[in-house]
Amino acid sequence: MSRPDLTSLMTAFDRNWPRWLREWQELLRFPSIGNFPQHAADCRACAEWLAGHLDAMGLMAEILPTEGQPVVYAERPGKPGRPVVLLYGHYDVQPADPLAAWTTPPFEPTMRGRRLYARGAEDNKGQFFYVLKAIETLLAAQALDATVKIVLDGEEECGSRGLAGALPKWRSRLKADVLMVADTGTVASGAPTITMGLRGIAFVSFTLTGSTHDLHSGVHGGVAPNPALGMARLLATLHREDGSVAVPGFYEGVEPPTDQERALANESPIEAADYQAVTGAQPVGGEQAFTPVERRGFRPTIEVNGLHSGYGDRGTKTIIPAVAEAKLSARLVAGQKPESCLNALVQHLRQHTPAGLRFDVLEQSVAGEGFRLNLDSPLVSRARQVLDQVSPLKTAFLWEGASVPVVTALAAASGAEPLLIGFGHEEDRVHAPDESFSIDQFRQGFLYAALLLGGW
Amino acid sequence: MSRPDLTSLMTAFDRNWPRWLREWQELLRFPSIGNFPQHAADCRACAEWLAGHLDAMGLMAEILPTEGQPVVYAERPGKPGRPVVLLYGHYDVQPADPLAAWTTPPFEPTMRGRRLYARGAEDNKGQFFYVLKAIETLLAAQALDATVKIVLDGEEECGSRGLAGALPKWRSRLKADVLMVADTGTVASGAPTITMGLRGIAFVSFTLTGSTHDLHSGVHGGVAPNPALGMARLLATLHREDGSVAVPGFYEGVEPPTDQERALANESPIEAADYQAVTGAQPVGGEQAFTPVERRGFRPTIEVNGLHSGYGDRGTKTIIPAVAEAKLSARLVAGQKPESCLNALVQHLRQHTPAGLRFDVLEQSVAGEGFRLNLDSPLVSRARQVLDQVSPLKTAFLWEGASVPVVTALAAASGAEPLLIGFGHEEDRVHAPDESFSIDQFRQGFLYAALLLGGW
Repeated sequence: MSRPDLTSLMTAFDRNWPRWLREWQELLRFPSIGNFPQHAADCRACAEWLAGHLDAMGLMAEILPTEGQPVVYAERPGKPGRPVVLLYGHYDVQPADPLAAWTTPPFEPTMRGRRLYARGAEDNKGQFFYVLKAIETLLAAQALDATVKIVLDGEEECGSRGLAGALPKWRSRLKADVLMVADTGTVASGAPTITMGLRGIAFVSFTLTGSTHDLHSGVHGGVAPNPALGMARLLATLHREDGSVAVPGFYEGVEPPTDQERALANESPIEAADYQAVTGAQPVGGEQAFTPVERRGFRPTIEVNGLHSGYGDRGTKTIIPAVAEAKLSARLVAGQKPESCLNALVQHLRQHTPAGLRFDVLEQSVAGEGFRLNLDSPLVSRARQVLDQVSPLKTAFLWEGASVPVVTALAAASGAEPLLIGFGHEEDRVHAPDESFSIDQFRQGFLYAALLLGGW
Repeated sequence: MSRPDLTSLMTAFDRNWPRWLREWQELLRFPSIGNFPQHAADCRACAEWLAGHLDAMGLMAEILPTEGQPVVYAERPGKPGRPVVLLYGHYDVQPADPLAAWTTPPFEPTMRGRRLYARGAEDNKGQFFYVLKAIETLLAAQALDATVKIVLDGEEECGSRGLAGALPKWRSRLKADVLMVADTGTVASGAPTITMGLRGIAFVSFTLTGSTHDLHSGVHGGVAPNPALGMARLLATLHREDGSVAVPGFYEGVEPPTDQERALANESPIEAADYQAVTGAQPVGGEQAFTPVERRGFRPTIEVNGLHSGYGDRGTKTIIPAVAEAKLSARLVAGQKPESCLNALVQHLRQHTPAGLRFDVLEQSVAGEGFRLNLDSPLVSRARQVLDQVSPLKTAFLWEGASVPVVTALAAASGAEPLLIGFGHEEDRVHAPDESFSIDQFRQGFLYAALLLGGW
């Protein structure tokens, strides 16, 4: 086929699926947790496997060292005058704990029904792998005219610092027209979805310390300050009753959505019953003045990711803990400056630390600004045409709440226009135990990627 | 000696100390954590060791089963017309975590300087063991005329439920005049101290649940309620700005101290510099309207003993935790009804649970009322005379913040008047890593117990 059509691609999928599934499972067996130094060898092994795989597909692959985990880079020149497409994905995964909550071990990929269960099955090994299989299929059919460049990050889940640090020296190599990212999901209906925005992210973890050791809660109760209680009082100052963030300066620069953006976002509302069926949660978090999709897509948040102090085993232990620790992250939207937001947050925490407790920052970092894409771009129109072929459902537009912090930086370094289309669903349980991705999601992603890339 | 004097007791101490230290170390090697079912065999072994030891000392010892860990009971009849003394102690110990914070392992008793380090070195194995050595010395000298009954509890650190449940059927056996308890400490100066009050205690542990699994904090931030944040907001409602408890009904029945009690308590103030030197903490917790000793002795508190939600390992994990758990305990004073206080607390927690979160009690229990003793009792005068012999420092009166929940119940069942004298210091670090008790504290306790018991 010179220009692949849907039928021939479906045939290619059916013929190759047993092998692709085996390869995908091999990829998922690497516990490539980029955040943990003890997994550095696993990350390296995963990168080497991927480089070998890309070489075998007919690309020129190499492993590029960074200050952190290595980046897998591959390139395949296309015809002159055709677009240059830069694919971004990440081979690192979230930590797998709590291990006991997994039905089958996180790094032993297991099929149940039409789903493959493993850490990274969706985020992001499953999603970038269907793009690789699309490229493989097009190459085999001599139907790929675009130039393809591939960057597979090893630290997306912990801030992409290695890649971000290397971008200045890789600018010319990465020059591209389109930055293709398959690390997003669809709206609840399952309709193909173009993600028009991502949030940025900033982190801070800190401790409140009251004493040099845990104190007897009888001898000291009413005398020593309690860091767990102080932490509760401190965290309670972060938001107002209406759910808005109470940190002075936090909302500075927030760009409100246009009427068209707001209307399109609300076309795919978060229905309470659906949301609860999938998550067990009621969509009542955040700022009550906005709808849930608006809160997710257009509003920044401060969340507690972890909170630990004192005794946590069974029964009772009558102590006043010596220390309390919290891990916070802020999701940021277009217009906010991450550094300023983080500084405002840390200053607020320091100023509101209760008497008798010592405030210490353990770690603070920013990892990318939030951004929103242009609804009127020709690239968006073209993507809609492709998505209309792979689904009977009308393409939705989503302003995502999640962050792919390096996308802003990669777009700037490569000069490319981002295109964020992925096929994740809520039931994939990314970042949680029993993460999975279905054959049907993989197949739809493959068809989309092959039609898009084959048409250039 | 028929009536032992201080000099002969000092000689007996010096002669026997090497053996007593070996025996005490044997006793401390049992990891008798009464709260943990996996330590039931260790508790049993410890009880058997103690029964054997008491038999060898010349008492009639037996192991009494309860619904929980067994009680060690021993008796030795004295002369008619002499007082019956019931000694209460406990052989169970607090859990030893965090293990990594111990300089030497908690169940490998180790001398450093003049201190023996082990879990239970002070609380309570060290303190009841010096009383046993006093009894042994008096028996060897045929100088013990009082009848002695000994109850060694296996569940003091977790509420003494087994012993409390068995008290109704043991009433006649336990009948006594004096209930001697060596499970308290001295004031900061180290002056001998009569503890005139103990606080009661009630416990509740509970969870707030927002979702069935941890959620991606980007996808769900601003949509799903955050249980860690909700827990912080909930716990922040427990106290007012001035440190007083904001739970309606919590202070009902609290008996204020007399002017004499308040004056005596404030004779041994908690000095900020001393307190900070020993604990690392500033004495600024609790109700600002009272002095630190008043807050500890005469005022009830609600403390957070443990607080856990979400990610606690290194680096970041961008989740909204599914659940948050807190363990609270309330210290109660004379006049408060523990059941009513606990119900008021649970009702407050339930009523203030933030929207979208489910409140579930994991465990709730009460373990003893607070009480205060009578300053004008002849027993108190007699104890002061003995204490004047073992120390040049003027005896202090302490209204203790800690709880020995079973003491109220034992006093009622035995008809005995409690006498709470112990030689614990803050630097003993009870309930914390590196618990210890010094030779000098042990010796002073031994001299006090022998003079008191030998004089009856």
